[in-house]
Amino acid sequence: MIIDYRSDTVTRPTAGMLEAMMRAKVGDDVLGDDPSVNELEALSADLFGMEAALFCPSGTMTNQIAIKCHTQPGDEVICDFTSHVYQYEGGGIAFNSSASVQLLQGNRGRITADQVRNSINADDVHKPHTSLVSLENTCNRGGGSCYELEEIQKIRTVCDERGLKLHLDGARLYNAIVAKKQSAQEFGQLFHTISVCLSKGLGCPVGSVLLGPADFIKKARRIRKVFGGGMRQAGFIAAAGIYALRNHVDRLEEDHQHAKQLEAALNELPFVSQVLPVETNIVIFTVAEGYTPQNLVAQLKEKGILAYAISATQIRLVTHLDVTPDMINETIRIFQQL
Amino acid sequence: MIIDYRSDTVTRPTAGMLEAMMRAKVGDDVLGDDPSVNELEALSADLFGMEAALFCPSGTMTNQIAIKCHTQPGDEVICDFTSHVYQYEGGGIAFNSSASVQLLQGNRGRITADQVRNSINADDVHKPHTSLVSLENTCNRGGGSCYELEEIQKIRTVCDERGLKLHLDGARLYNAIVAKKQSAQEFGQLFHTISVCLSKGLGCPVGSVLLGPADFIKKARRIRKVFGGGMRQAGFIAAAGIYALRNHVDRLEEDHQHAKQLEAALNELPFVSQVLPVETNIVIFTVAEGYTPQNLVAQLKEKGILAYAISATQIRLVTHLDVTPDMINETIRIFQQL
Amino acid sequence: MIIDYRSDTVTRPTAGMLEAMMRAKVGDDVLGDDPSVNELEALSADLFGMEAALFCPSGTMTNQIAIKCHTQPGDEVICDFTSHVYQYEGGGIAFNSSASVQLLQGNRGRITADQVRNSINADDVHKPHTSLVSLENTCNRGGGSCYELEEIQKIRTVCDERGLKLHLDGARLYNAIVAKKQSAQEFGQLFHTISVCLSKGLGCPVGSVLLGPADFIKKARRIRKVFGGGMRQAGFIAAAGIYALRNHVDRLEEDHQHAKQLEAALNELPFVSQVLPVETNIVIFTVAEGYTPQNLVAQLKEKGILAYAISATQIRLVTHLDVTPDMINETIRIFQQL
Amino acid sequence: MIIDYRSDTVTRPTAGMLEAMMRAKVGDDVLGDDPSVNELEALSADLFGMEAALFCPSGTMTNQIAIKCHTQPGDEVICDFTSHVYQYEGGGIAFNSSASVQLLQGNRGRITADQVRNSINADDVHKPHTSLVSLENTCNRGGGSCYELEEIQKIRTVCDERGLKLHLDGARLYNAIVAKKQSAQEFGQLFHTISVCLSKGLGCPVGSVLLGPADFIKKARRIRKVFGGGMRQAGFIAAAGIYALRNHVDRLEEDHQHAKQLEAALNELPFVSQVLPVETNIVIFTVAEGYTPQNLVAQLKEKGILAYAISATQIRLVTHLDVTPDMINETIRIFQQL
Repeated sequence: MIIDYRSDTVTRPTAGMLEAMMRAKVGDDVLGDDPSVNELEALSADLFGMEAALFCPSGTMTNQIAIKCHTQPGDEVICDFTSHVYQYEGGGIAFNSSASVQLLQGNRGRITADQVRNSINADDVHKPHTSLVSLENTCNRGGGSCYELEEIQKIRTVCDERGLKLHLDGARLYNAIVAKKQSAQEFGQLFHTISVCLSKGLGCPVGSVLLGPADFIKKARRIRKVFGGGMRQAGFIAAAGIYALRNHVDRLEEDHQHAKQLEAALNELPFVSQVLPVETNIVIFTVAEGYTPQNLVAQLKEKGILAYAISATQIRLVTHLDVTPDMINETIRIFQQL
Repeated sequence: MIIDYRSDTVTRPTAGMLEAMMRAKVGDDVLGDDPSVNELEALSADLFGMEAALFCPSGTMTNQIAIKCHTQPGDEVICDFTSHVYQYEGGGIAFNSSASVQLLQGNRGRITADQVRNSINADDVHKPHTSLVSLENTCNRGGGSCYELEEIQKIRTVCDERGLKLHLDGARLYNAIVAKKQSAQEFGQLFHTISVCLSKGLGCPVGSVLLGPADFIKKARRIRKVFGGGMRQAGFIAAAGIYALRNHVDRLEEDHQHAKQLEAALNELPFVSQVLPVETNIVIFTVAEGYTPQNLVAQLKEKGILAYAISATQIRLVTHLDVTPDMINETIRIFQQL
Repeated sequence: MIIDYRSDTVTRPTAGMLEAMMRAKVGDDVLGDDPSVNELEALSADLFGMEAALFCPSGTMTNQIAIKCHTQPGDEVICDFTSHVYQYEGGGIAFNSSASVQLLQGNRGRITADQVRNSINADDVHKPHTSLVSLENTCNRGGGSCYELEEIQKIRTVCDERGLKLHLDGARLYNAIVAKKQSAQEFGQLFHTISVCLSKGLGCPVGSVLLGPADFIKKARRIRKVFGGGMRQAGFIAAAGIYALRNHVDRLEEDHQHAKQLEAALNELPFVSQVLPVETNIVIFTVAEGYTPQNLVAQLKEKGILAYAISATQIRLVTHLDVTPDMINETIRIFQQL
Repeated sequence: MIIDYRSDTVTRPTAGMLEAMMRAKVGDDVLGDDPSVNELEALSADLFGMEAALFCPSGTMTNQIAIKCHTQPGDEVICDFTSHVYQYEGGGIAFNSSASVQLLQGNRGRITADQVRNSINADDVHKPHTSLVSLENTCNRGGGSCYELEEIQKIRTVCDERGLKLHLDGARLYNAIVAKKQSAQEFGQLFHTISVCLSKGLGCPVGSVLLGPADFIKKARRIRKVFGGGMRQAGFIAAAGIYALRNHVDRLEEDHQHAKQLEAALNELPFVSQVLPVETNIVIFTVAEGYTPQNLVAQLKEKGILAYAISATQIRLVTHLDVTPDMINETIRIFQQL
């Protein structure tokens, strides 16, 4: 048995989801004719109380399109230095948008309104024009940490005062919503645009949705086309998204419970020096002196447990739909034998 | 009954294809773990005798990645002025690659080796550096016209002499291969890279494959990521591609036969001034004086026939998997009553 | 004696201009402190009745900045296919602005309002968004041809109706103004932005001025900085511009007279098949059968006359400040002996 | 009397330099015909023992061209977070090169070989491809701090091992050479390319030179053109550069002496909490509690002394050719009276 904690992207569709996919009504989405895609977009926008939505092949694409539409070449984007848009999207901020970055040192990935205010550039030809703040919630590299809505509200106030836009990389936003008992509507009011991933905790094979004002989404549709993200009978995968939004949100609580079980076990183990406090479905721990992440990951792999060494001192485990309670118990047993 | 001639992208999967999709083995393709994607890429490369392949969400993406990888910002791409890469990819040559275009006036979309040779820029700081020739086969705006291999060979010779790369937009390449009794292997030898679309005549819901040398495809994979084209359990749609390559190639002959039937009928009709000679599955005709494409298209729509007005004087019809012999007869009957 | 007709960029400052340069009051223009630059910018804006101006190192930079500020990546620029911005600026429209081109076939470089109207793209994700029309006056490759103000007015009307901007590459605008007895003010009213070159017919060593609305020029100043076009004590070269605007405009008539003398002589010669009608200071002729531009240019060079072969059949001669009446006579004498 | 410490860019040409400018032999440099530009380029390359050189309007342009030529869109540049290329060039790394940045926390602007080695990205599609390291010497924001050649050699070794290029922003390189008794030849051997500014300590009105291999400079000339940095009779300003290289290098020692005098005085003053150790011609001090840089700069301006508040706590003074010993004494007197 392989227990795969590398990412919550590795899930395979459940039987119910697969059935929904195969029964999907489809059409040519580039021509606007795919009923399943249209339904997923309408449903997503409705859940967040936002005007419009756009279905895309990946969360990288929804983020990159958002950054592109919010900025001009030569603008500057404020974000935490660990954020996915800077660290894991292939340098896309510069590649796709020719925009600079102002990298802040947040608290486990979460930046503050004061930090944002102090990092907006003056109106000076030597300096890029600051035009966008991008948050991530939950924060992957922060160990699945969640923002408080109050801090986001303060950041939005700074943005409004200074004419900036506020984007949310919500790759794992439903994890935050479930863990913090927040609502999608609250997020829809705080952000100009939100990217929500369907192929992480929600368990879909493919896809992400970008949410925003109608004119923004019209512009985004144009950028999706030029990136080559327009798909034809995309309804097969959109149907999985609809199914997930209806059936896979509440169950995220189970993944969080599993993550906390792993945290508790890891805190007792000699090869662990520190576990980042678990808030959702991500467990990041620092290895104790004398150990290396690479070696531990290799040993775990021999025992059938897959995980990632994400830095010179840290290992990450992600719980998800395909990790069962039995697997958690088995994992803890193996940990204790290492 | 709606008979949809707008494009061969509108097809819906057959029962066999849908079953293949449902049974697909999948994994996380961004991590290289999806067996169906891996199989489709290996199969495609093998069919063309090329080293490697990359599965992408669309033909626009495979073309745009190819152009990006073959050029530097400031380079120039030679192509026919009607070509899809210039006309229908959202300005992507400039947007994604910051490259200029040298637009040639080909014969129904087909350019010659002499034209290419005469349009390569001198080594001069005032001029972009010419680095790529992009052909399209079949040529959409040329009415599905096909290249002779001899002319392509001459163009390749010019490219080799002058250090240019040669890319093929093979959105409808299998139509050419079937119509002209050519082989995929011959094309694999003539071009540095080829984009082959699965969601046009081959009848898949989504997807396109880019073919080329192994190091080129490695670079292409990086660009796919930064565009956001990396998909997770993409095997569901890749499985459709495998099915199509095994079951939907030879039957293209039927679409070509249907197109010729439409051509013959149109040539007799008063509202038609000229039909471009039909070679594959595309029928483009010029309307006679006194008619407008917009009006004719509107009248056809009322009768259940969908087509596109593609210019101020022309209408395009595309035959495909979902157009049956009965539909062809019905279409001709409706034409004759207009 | 060398008589240099390669371009009107080859002129060297007159004694009066050199004296003005050396007496210039200067400061750090990046800090806004250079009085001579400030004076040149104010004078230029005033001459055209436009709000603001920006001094740059070259006409390529003023054109490229204008195109950049008027467009977004993925937009499309309409221009004649022979225009300098497309042909001789290193592919800058794509390189600097990631914008596409819609290339029109004008009459000796001059396009019409009807052509512009018919080449604006529909609102369609497949097509770039048309946002700018760029004219050139005089038209270099049209043989120094000049626009009628009436046609420009019609083009501007189309632009206003369709939300496009209208830019003028006025590298040789003063030649048109003098030849057609037009005024700078008229051009200032017809265009959103104008680039005026100082180092062509006006005889300055370096520099070009971009004219436009104040907020546009503020944006342009930012782009000038990021291109590296901000210069420190630029007043030395700006002073040459001020001198030229006061002393070298009216004398352009003399260059035009010289060009007409060359035209008359060429029209009688056996190696000339056709001379484009001379309107200003550019003479372009097609060589007769049996001759090649390359050979003729080489023969002329042996006799001390420098000219450019600008195509496979054409030679260009440009008259300017450093070409004297004696040189014209000598040139004609040499022509007649070839 | 105004004493201007805002930057060493504010200098005006000396009588000798102005005479050299007036007597300059000039031609059309875009055509390669300007003897003074050619001489400056040859002289500069020779001084550093490098193959070729390119004269440009500014140091921003030489840096931006170098970064462009060393990188592909999507690549990553390693540099100190205070470096000019990131902080003061309008976001040009992203704007002009579509490249990402890896920002290191150096010691007063100086990064180490170990830092470089640890910040090179793995070969992973999620990560930009690291291709360039850019150093600055002297470091402006480090208070004119200088690198040791030994550390640069170690960095070059890392670059060679990992296939990276090494660029030097030598805006004030001659200050380092004079202060540390190093040679231009040593720098020419350590770096792939060097940008040397003529309009800072060397006292020229305009210009910067980019040095590198011949094929690199050929490529750079193409980029200079597309940025609009090609100038016609640029020899007038190139002549100032030749004069400066022959007459203004050794005298930089005087500017350094002046800076040390200011440092000694500032260290005794109540409104100063700390002065960064002075190594060359830049003096950066932190204001004591109860003071703000803005207020102090305003008070100094009233007394005729110009300086910049460069952060919320720091003021910068730069000594240069136009600051005399008397001005230093007067400045210290005014400081003591504040």
